[in-house]
Amino acid sequence: MAKSDELAADVRRRLQAARVLTFNLVSSPGSGKTTLLERTLADLGAEFAISVVTGDVQTQNDADRLARHTDRLVQAVVTNGACHLDARQVATALDEVDLNNTRLLFIENVGNLVCPADYDLGEDLRVVLLSTTEGEDKPLKYPPMFHSADVAIVTKSDLAAAAGFNREQALANLKRVSHHAEIFELSAKTGDGMRSWLDFLVKRQRV
Amino acid sequence: MAKSDELAADVRRRLQAARVLTFNLVSSPGSGKTTLLERTLADLGAEFAISVVTGDVQTQNDADRLARHTDRLVQAVVTNGACHLDARQVATALDEVDLNNTRLLFIENVGNLVCPADYDLGEDLRVVLLSTTEGEDKPLKYPPMFHSADVAIVTKSDLAAAAGFNREQALANLKRVSHHAEIFELSAKTGDGMRSWLDFLVKRQRV
Repeated sequence: MAKSDELAADVRRRLQAARVLTFNLVSSPGSGKTTLLERTLADLGAEFAISVVTGDVQTQNDADRLARHTDRLVQAVVTNGACHLDARQVATALDEVDLNNTRLLFIENVGNLVCPADYDLGEDLRVVLLSTTEGEDKPLKYPPMFHSADVAIVTKSDLAAAAGFNREQALANLKRVSHHAEIFELSAKTGDGMRSWLDFLVKRQRV
Repeated sequence: MAKSDELAADVRRRLQAARVLTFNLVSSPGSGKTTLLERTLADLGAEFAISVVTGDVQTQNDADRLARHTDRLVQAVVTNGACHLDARQVATALDEVDLNNTRLLFIENVGNLVCPADYDLGEDLRVVLLSTTEGEDKPLKYPPMFHSADVAIVTKSDLAAAAGFNREQALANLKRVSHHAEIFELSAKTGDGMRSWLDFLVKRQRV
């Protein structure tokens, strides 16, 4: 773990030197990490210089979906059976990223609310997604993950009504556990709420 | 791991001796394990003698929800930070279960599609849930978990249309990866499709 933290510190220094702002995206499987990235890439456009490291466990699916929107995409090699990315895998992936021509870097972690919590990847901001379909209680059930988040995004807002999503309860749980986090609510499918998220990205980039 | 498998074998012998049929429920967080159990308990009724071991990581939430439907409920103690139940935790929990008056035992695992795959709990049948809101690709992305399943349940069928769920693709993926599995499709919320699942449980109980 000490070794892993050292590697993360190396990654962080490398990214900061290149003036790249880095996000580590974590959530349950199926909360919409890839869809959020697809929409973010499409909306901010190629000129914004976003790179992506994706940590799919077994398939090329996410990489294939993202490759439609960017050629700045590197797949991190996740050890078979692993439930999170680590800083070493990210460091290796970064060798293939043109950091000097990258403003924002998204690292799409393995879909998991337990394992990634303890692994610093060298990111600036940790972003946790909570979809309206998975239950308002998830912040309470997975506190280390939600507590460590700098940003919390309620996704799939278009499905909130159909799923019987209790928005007040969810926000109260997020504020209780993810109390360091800036909170967004959006649907990457309909585009609803995307503007605040995109503004946040543009505002936070390193100059 | 060898020790864990031995413990699982002990649990299995103990359950079979008591003529208890045991299910290990696994899925992403928020796929509906607790809701399925609530509905199953409500529909089959107290006279059917169902016991539940629930492995919530940090909260009492699942246990509280299930306690409304049964008094045959034991919370397994999951080590802080653990992403799965193990046979030792189940063995300890079983000390509090009246096995001789139990026909079906459900073990609700930690919500996780990676870690629980490798841990035999001594169950007869492993049941994986895939909700219509989390994406058709999950069986391909988490093959060890889906491949090891004896039963695969597509949950939240009431949200399929709103979520744009591609049922054919999902079933094709399940048949490809969970090819040992009997497949059910249902909504525990509306009750749609519950009948086949309940019939299956009644039919499979040990006599």
